[in-house]
Amino acid sequence: MKKVILIPDSFKGTMSSAEICTVMAQAVQEYYPDAQVHSVPVADGGEGSVDSFLQAVGGEKVSVTVKGPYFEEVPAFYGMLPDGVAVIEMAAAAGLPLVGERLHAEQTTTYGVGELMAHALERGCKRLVVGLGGSATNDGGCGAAAALGAVFRNAAGEAFVPVGATLAEVAEIDLSGLHPALASAELVTMCDIDNPLCGPLGAAHVFAPQKGADPAMVELLDAGLAHLADVVERCTGRDIRQLHGAGAAGGMGGGMVAFFGSTLQMGIETVLDTVGFDKLLEGADMVFSGEGKLDAQSLLGKVVIGVARRAKRAGVPLVAVVGDIGDNIEAAYDMGVSAVFSINRVAVPFREAKPRSKSDLALTMDNLMRFCRRMGW
Amino acid sequence: MKKVILIPDSFKGTMSSAEICTVMAQAVQEYYPDAQVHSVPVADGGEGSVDSFLQAVGGEKVSVTVKGPYFEEVPAFYGMLPDGVAVIEMAAAAGLPLVGERLHAEQTTTYGVGELMAHALERGCKRLVVGLGGSATNDGGCGAAAALGAVFRNAAGEAFVPVGATLAEVAEIDLSGLHPALASAELVTMCDIDNPLCGPLGAAHVFAPQKGADPAMVELLDAGLAHLADVVERCTGRDIRQLHGAGAAGGMGGGMVAFFGSTLQMGIETVLDTVGFDKLLEGADMVFSGEGKLDAQSLLGKVVIGVARRAKRAGVPLVAVVGDIGDNIEAAYDMGVSAVFSINRVAVPFREAKPRSKSDLALTMDNLMRFCRRMGW
Repeated sequence: MKKVILIPDSFKGTMSSAEICTVMAQAVQEYYPDAQVHSVPVADGGEGSVDSFLQAVGGEKVSVTVKGPYFEEVPAFYGMLPDGVAVIEMAAAAGLPLVGERLHAEQTTTYGVGELMAHALERGCKRLVVGLGGSATNDGGCGAAAALGAVFRNAAGEAFVPVGATLAEVAEIDLSGLHPALASAELVTMCDIDNPLCGPLGAAHVFAPQKGADPAMVELLDAGLAHLADVVERCTGRDIRQLHGAGAAGGMGGGMVAFFGSTLQMGIETVLDTVGFDKLLEGADMVFSGEGKLDAQSLLGKVVIGVARRAKRAGVPLVAVVGDIGDNIEAAYDMGVSAVFSINRVAVPFREAKPRSKSDLALTMDNLMRFCRRMGW
Repeated sequence: MKKVILIPDSFKGTMSSAEICTVMAQAVQEYYPDAQVHSVPVADGGEGSVDSFLQAVGGEKVSVTVKGPYFEEVPAFYGMLPDGVAVIEMAAAAGLPLVGERLHAEQTTTYGVGELMAHALERGCKRLVVGLGGSATNDGGCGAAAALGAVFRNAAGEAFVPVGATLAEVAEIDLSGLHPALASAELVTMCDIDNPLCGPLGAAHVFAPQKGADPAMVELLDAGLAHLADVVERCTGRDIRQLHGAGAAGGMGGGMVAFFGSTLQMGIETVLDTVGFDKLLEGADMVFSGEGKLDAQSLLGKVVIGVARRAKRAGVPLVAVVGDIGDNIEAAYDMGVSAVFSINRVAVPFREAKPRSKSDLALTMDNLMRFCRRMGW
């Protein structure tokens, strides 16, 4: 009986990882009805990440009412996986879909994200995975920290919960009252972007415009984050200015490190660790991965290569089924990709290929499985 | 040791069959250096067919000076294959490249094709394969017949060699003086088109414009072919009016049947018979075929399906590596195609895909062979 693992990234804007898993699983099971097929839809930390983890390893979706981006009450959720792992997607409490047209990055808070974290900690989780992405905020994670007991004071010594517009007022940060369970839980933040906290490539300049900030507001938000970094360093000794990924999710990347000492980790590594991928690989006969485009850039650590490295270590063949195959991918083979196939089956531009991507993926998988069966695999 | 057969059609206008064989062979031999690789570039009867056959099975390229399209002396050639098979491409003596800009379908002759046939017969060939395609002529094969001893007479009883413009003058055809060796040789004409001799879908209407005929001339040529059919029926009892393929190569398809009793055959079937494909399949582990597009139309008998039918009968897996994969190809699997893969690797229109087709084919073959090796084939 074959053991086959399906762990594709989404084809961005075309098919979700879960959809791809479904198509792949159908093809495998048509030709190998007895195969043990493990689908691991890959979460990237953004919207849908909790569902992906739950689909991959099971667990409970926990519903909690928390403060939304404007401190209003919103229904939110997180995932409680087996083995005491909790998974939060920050978008559930602070995401763009919650604000609709009300885009004001300077007013929004991550407070609800902290509430979700607190809830999970109180449920006894030992490992807390927080997925960044899709946020409507620019508060440097101060809201979340406040929800977990951090106290921010202004120059007059008054406690307040900073938002983007008031970051510059933070004069002192007191972490002594942080939720005690934080000390005993491992915190991992999923973060696939490299942007620094502030400056031209920082959170405000790069991401705040899509959260409603005009140029003047971008400058104000950027200055606020820079000021926050100063106070963080003075009060905690942690320097988050040079930190890769600190600028993710309106500075939440930086806040997770500054306030909670979290690790920032590539999404795929978090997924592989959280689903126990190395264990899953034991006895596996084949891994199928994939992404929208396999190219020299994805060799820097995107999904296929992250998966391939582990598959190679375990001696399991990995086939990448992708949208486009870019140039200069030779290194991918060394990193563990056994072979790569494109789903493109007709020479048409992307706008024509996109709507047919699901059936083209199905055809490619169908032929790969036909081929396997015919070759006696 | 693996035995692998490569027998792709050309990707029309993009890569020749021989070029594809070269790319495929390199990929196979990179991963299976000991493999016994048999390349069978597929001839379609047109220019390059003789070289394809010689490459596939070996033999001698025989040089002969014959009459060209305008009865001038031209250097031409044919192929003498093992086992007494001769292969002629009519383009060598009556092809468009020989006339350049001098396009006058009404004046040109297939006489030289008959001379090549005579030469091969005198060398003792027992099977004569004549490839149609790429002709500059519209003489219904009368020139070739005259070179082999047929006598065409006008109403005054005068012998002459008809060309397109004088077909209507043919009053009588005497085949009694045909080359005696014709009787003992098997004649096969490679013909992949279905057009009738005359009428709206006939040789003149469909093909003469690209051979220099204006509308008035097309009518004259068409009427000439229709008249020829009448005289043929009267003098030989053969009705070539309804014959599929009679309109190939300026009516040469019809002439091969009318004057010599030749068989008209699909190119791929001729190739498969001539190279002894069924014997080649004995002990083969895999066949690679391919064509520019595999679609519902190619199921009607183009190269991949022709090859697949034989491979299926012999129980040998056949992988089709193609340009585009059209819709509704399910029947191909039943006909013997084990799996089909497209060389398209990026979603771009054909004009962008075409110049990169060779490297895209190489990448696809490379990954198929990587896959085979990794799967323990």
